[in-house]
Amino acid sequence: MKKIKEKVNAAIVVIGNEILSGRTQDVNVVAISLWLNELGVKLEEVRIIPDIEKKIIKTINDVKKKFKYVFTTGGIGPTHDDITSLSIAKAFNSKYGYHKKAYNLLEKYYGKKAFNSGRKKMAMMPIKAKLIFNPSSGAPGFNIGNVYCLPGVPSILKSMLGGLKNEIIGGKKILSKTITLRTVESEIASPLGKVQNKYKTIDIGSYPFFKKGKLGVSIVIRSADKKKIDDCHKDIVSFLKKKKIKMIGTT
Amino acid sequence: MKKIKEKVNAAIVVIGNEILSGRTQDVNVVAISLWLNELGVKLEEVRIIPDIEKKIIKTINDVKKKFKYVFTTGGIGPTHDDITSLSIAKAFNSKYGYHKKAYNLLEKYYGKKAFNSGRKKMAMMPIKAKLIFNPSSGAPGFNIGNVYCLPGVPSILKSMLGGLKNEIIGGKKILSKTITLRTVESEIASPLGKVQNKYKTIDIGSYPFFKKGKLGVSIVIRSADKKKIDDCHKDIVSFLKKKKIKMIGTT
Repeated sequence: MKKIKEKVNAAIVVIGNEILSGRTQDVNVVAISLWLNELGVKLEEVRIIPDIEKKIIKTINDVKKKFKYVFTTGGIGPTHDDITSLSIAKAFNSKYGYHKKAYNLLEKYYGKKAFNSGRKKMAMMPIKAKLIFNPSSGAPGFNIGNVYCLPGVPSILKSMLGGLKNEIIGGKKILSKTITLRTVESEIASPLGKVQNKYKTIDIGSYPFFKKGKLGVSIVIRSADKKKIDDCHKDIVSFLKKKKIKMIGTT
Repeated sequence: MKKIKEKVNAAIVVIGNEILSGRTQDVNVVAISLWLNELGVKLEEVRIIPDIEKKIIKTINDVKKKFKYVFTTGGIGPTHDDITSLSIAKAFNSKYGYHKKAYNLLEKYYGKKAFNSGRKKMAMMPIKAKLIFNPSSGAPGFNIGNVYCLPGVPSILKSMLGGLKNEIIGGKKILSKTITLRTVESEIASPLGKVQNKYKTIDIGSYPFFKKGKLGVSIVIRSADKKKIDDCHKDIVSFLKKKKIKMIGTT
């Protein structure tokens, strides 16, 4: 049996000028994060960086030491601005070139005649990398060391996470409970702070929202320990009742 | 007259467990980035980090040296998990306490009777900070050194950017032109790479998309130099015509 570690962490490096310029709204961080929660891996940092080789190499070398798993998104397509694969090879001092398995796979996918230079480029990566299967559009992602390189197109990225599941060995699954209130944060700040002090290992977040013209607060309790979440939840509900604060729901 | 610098850069530090956990989709990066484009400031990096004091201090100390402007979002509310203000004070070795102007402003906003400990906490920050006016909900943001601290709630953050405009001295405005095509990236990769080689100082991005079941590519040309964008655009249109690739639009 695999030994289950208490805490396994990860970082995401989003590579793409289009995210930094505000042209494209990133949605991959949420997708990867929710998937990691299920696997018991805690996302602890995200960096969004431009398509600049030096910057990619420096960032990867920094985060791959600090986190158990690193996921990159973007920059593995066929055009000149797709420089993730080359940069990752350089970060790992690994030879960059045609990956035999990727080349064969792509040649088969497109057919020999349509397998042009742009498509061939998608077979170029660290030659010792392990491929990540792409059920949507052929071109694989790849894994080298603790770094997993995924594409930037959200639908394709999502379709590739399933096949990656067995590669990632997580810790205990992170559970959460959310209490939604009709109040403002300053009304609950003091007693909620006391509950957080009592349960130091539990992560309690407080998030104000405006919905349909009404103010509210969501309290989110997160931990791998279900019993502690339940105890903490009881304490919060108890002070809410005392203060006569309206609870809209618990999920 | 102010001297206009060619390149002015910025970084955003998103502070919040709720973004890392996948519970909340960040939208502030796009909002700040688009606003910075207008001011001629190029967003060059984003870091998303948890509500952990040490981590905030380390990240701020790192990015404030590397970038002209740093914007933080989140963690300046009244609850126990709002630790941005204290952490920023520590990063700047600045005294943390009630900011006189913020205290008076908030006391007036809420009224003496309703000015409870949670609300008072929002007046706590580096005492020598400069306030950032909040037209939506009273509680101000603040600026110290080159770091500008904004709230996490998107509607409030957006309402505060207007008042901040005169504080930020940008360079030349970054312009862009987008050509939308009915093709796939591998069909244009080679000639587009050649155009990029010709215009080395221009930023040309290629972004595949799937819309209503159809494949397409957007080519985005970005630069502060309008003439160069136009020249580059002409060259791209020229090879597209030669290759008989369908252009859907240019914006």
